[in-house]
Amino acid sequence: MLPFSTDQSGNASSTHDIGIAAGVAMKAARRQLQALIGANFDHEIIFTSGGTKSDNTAILSGLEVMPERTEIVTSAVEHPAVLTLCTHLEKTRGVKVHRIPVDHHGRFDLRAYGKALTHRVAIVSIMWADNETGTIFPVAELAEMAKKVGALFHTDAVQAVGKLPMDLKLTAIDMLSLSGHKLHGPKGIGALYVKRGVPFSSLIMGGHQERDRRAGTENTPGIVGLGKAAELALECMDEGNTRVKPLRDRLEKGILERIPKTFVTGDPLARLPNTANVAFDSIDGQAIQFLLNRYGIACSSGSACTSGTLERSHVLEAMSIPRARGAVRFSFSRYSSEEDVDRVLEVLPGIVEKLRDSSPLSSGQAKC
Amino acid sequence: MLPFSTDQSGNASSTHDIGIAAGVAMKAARRQLQALIGANFDHEIIFTSGGTKSDNTAILSGLEVMPERTEIVTSAVEHPAVLTLCTHLEKTRGVKVHRIPVDHHGRFDLRAYGKALTHRVAIVSIMWADNETGTIFPVAELAEMAKKVGALFHTDAVQAVGKLPMDLKLTAIDMLSLSGHKLHGPKGIGALYVKRGVPFSSLIMGGHQERDRRAGTENTPGIVGLGKAAELALECMDEGNTRVKPLRDRLEKGILERIPKTFVTGDPLARLPNTANVAFDSIDGQAIQFLLNRYGIACSSGSACTSGTLERSHVLEAMSIPRARGAVRFSFSRYSSEEDVDRVLEVLPGIVEKLRDSSPLSSGQAKC
Repeated sequence: MLPFSTDQSGNASSTHDIGIAAGVAMKAARRQLQALIGANFDHEIIFTSGGTKSDNTAILSGLEVMPERTEIVTSAVEHPAVLTLCTHLEKTRGVKVHRIPVDHHGRFDLRAYGKALTHRVAIVSIMWADNETGTIFPVAELAEMAKKVGALFHTDAVQAVGKLPMDLKLTAIDMLSLSGHKLHGPKGIGALYVKRGVPFSSLIMGGHQERDRRAGTENTPGIVGLGKAAELALECMDEGNTRVKPLRDRLEKGILERIPKTFVTGDPLARLPNTANVAFDSIDGQAIQFLLNRYGIACSSGSACTSGTLERSHVLEAMSIPRARGAVRFSFSRYSSEEDVDRVLEVLPGIVEKLRDSSPLSSGQAKC
Repeated sequence: MLPFSTDQSGNASSTHDIGIAAGVAMKAARRQLQALIGANFDHEIIFTSGGTKSDNTAILSGLEVMPERTEIVTSAVEHPAVLTLCTHLEKTRGVKVHRIPVDHHGRFDLRAYGKALTHRVAIVSIMWADNETGTIFPVAELAEMAKKVGALFHTDAVQAVGKLPMDLKLTAIDMLSLSGHKLHGPKGIGALYVKRGVPFSSLIMGGHQERDRRAGTENTPGIVGLGKAAELALECMDEGNTRVKPLRDRLEKGILERIPKTFVTGDPLARLPNTANVAFDSIDGQAIQFLLNRYGIACSSGSACTSGTLERSHVLEAMSIPRARGAVRFSFSRYSSEEDVDRVLEVLPGIVEKLRDSSPLSSGQAKC
């Protein structure tokens, strides 16, 4: 990224040499992303400023290109980038939104989905994998079902891209969102895949960048960084199962062995290899996060996009996990080590014990 | 920017230490921008992915918060980020758009503006300085006039921020767009100033970032870079008149002396110190640009956001500059040197002569 932030900082839309060099670098990045997600054509990739922008663009485009349809199907556990927009559309445009429920393992309710799918649905937006629990949804199958009623199918794959092998050209998925900083790429850059032939309406209007699908001077360093991150993610894809997943399992097993009244949330079978979301009876997740932070351990209690607020995780709510059970999420990557895991296992039991001793949630039945 | 792209790559919305450090850095950047544009409060700055996003957000927000008003006032020479959106709104939402004309020097028609301003106008969007000719518009005065009819006033100040001194708190300007890469900051980052108390509706929905006004994980390195660029621009503001303007004037004077049938476009009095837009009888601007590029000289024929296409500059069109006169824009900065100017003066006369000799536009009256 450095040359494109310094000497080669040309505008990729300019036609002089320094601009053309930037354009060539962008083309290479587009191909690196194409390879990672198995797109048919590199121009199916539209660069955006991130996952939220991609999600918003996909859903609004779906409504715009299917004006005769006024319903959206999504799930109860989507990222706020999807759910907040859907709620806004319900209120301001009279769009009907179906929020498909999940069970206590976070698994998608296929029957409810089948019932919601009608010819009134403009677009379906279901995440590939949940950002809090890591539960994987059967998006290829869901896309096939949507196709039968002529609805567009979008997936927020921000958590899944770079962690799960993908071959989009073999699926009926019309649009897919991804984000740079979720695959060791830069922040402030993402992409929206739009399958060739799928009708599309731009959210941001202005210049002719991205074939008129996303106006604004291209973030060349960000795009080049995302491309390189995609290339590395593809090269290291196997590590997810051979190295990252065993580390994650070691942490989960260690916690369950050492700390009573604790369980792992999410689908036991279909789950991202890098996500551990662990719930603890009688404690607030934010309190655990706060104390772990003192030991230099960064974890999350819910999505960073909602943290700083005191909102309860809507994902845990949808899974009917009782309020008295606080959860924290530990995220792994190919840079995580055994030492990282051991350090958490060393300090976490003491933290949980301390919190349970002083917790108002600990009185009564939860403590029994 | 480097630490925030490497070791300190925390999510600014996370509440662990590495996230908090990113949030602190963002706060500092907000203050640096506040100082540059003279905002009253740092939270009047919303970070966006660039100027186009800021422009789109401001105009759409204006319509959203004033639902009883259905007209927009803008100028005929705005950037495509404003004009393309306005045309789209005309077609799809029945919004009435007033495009205030300019004279042959690119100067704003105040009388037409006064006539267009009624209580039906939701938002006025007039650029602070034109991106092709550098002509400066009297935005403070225009904002006062808009205020009298209760319309919101937005200015696309992408070309002006960092080049002209500003003190927004003393003006009636409600919203202002700026872009990182126009003031030696990074690409892919910009900001929208929204004066405290001005009603606002977010374009991108999702997490609670930027006080619910712009969802999506913050581009911390970009924000930090934009903040630093703002600080440096403020420090170096004087150089615009003491060093950059004399260089620009030297180029213009040199071209006019050496090449006949040539003139400088834009307002002779109120013009950015760093922009030279020169028109040449009987040649196409893109041809000049193409040949200068061979000598390693990067200039522009129109906005980069429209280049690569064969569209005629709408700005020159609005100034009634004949089609047979091609124009190129040379942009200066505090990094430009006398040698740069001399190099252009050395090669440009030969290029123009060569093109005029072979130009189909050169036959007939233009050659007389």
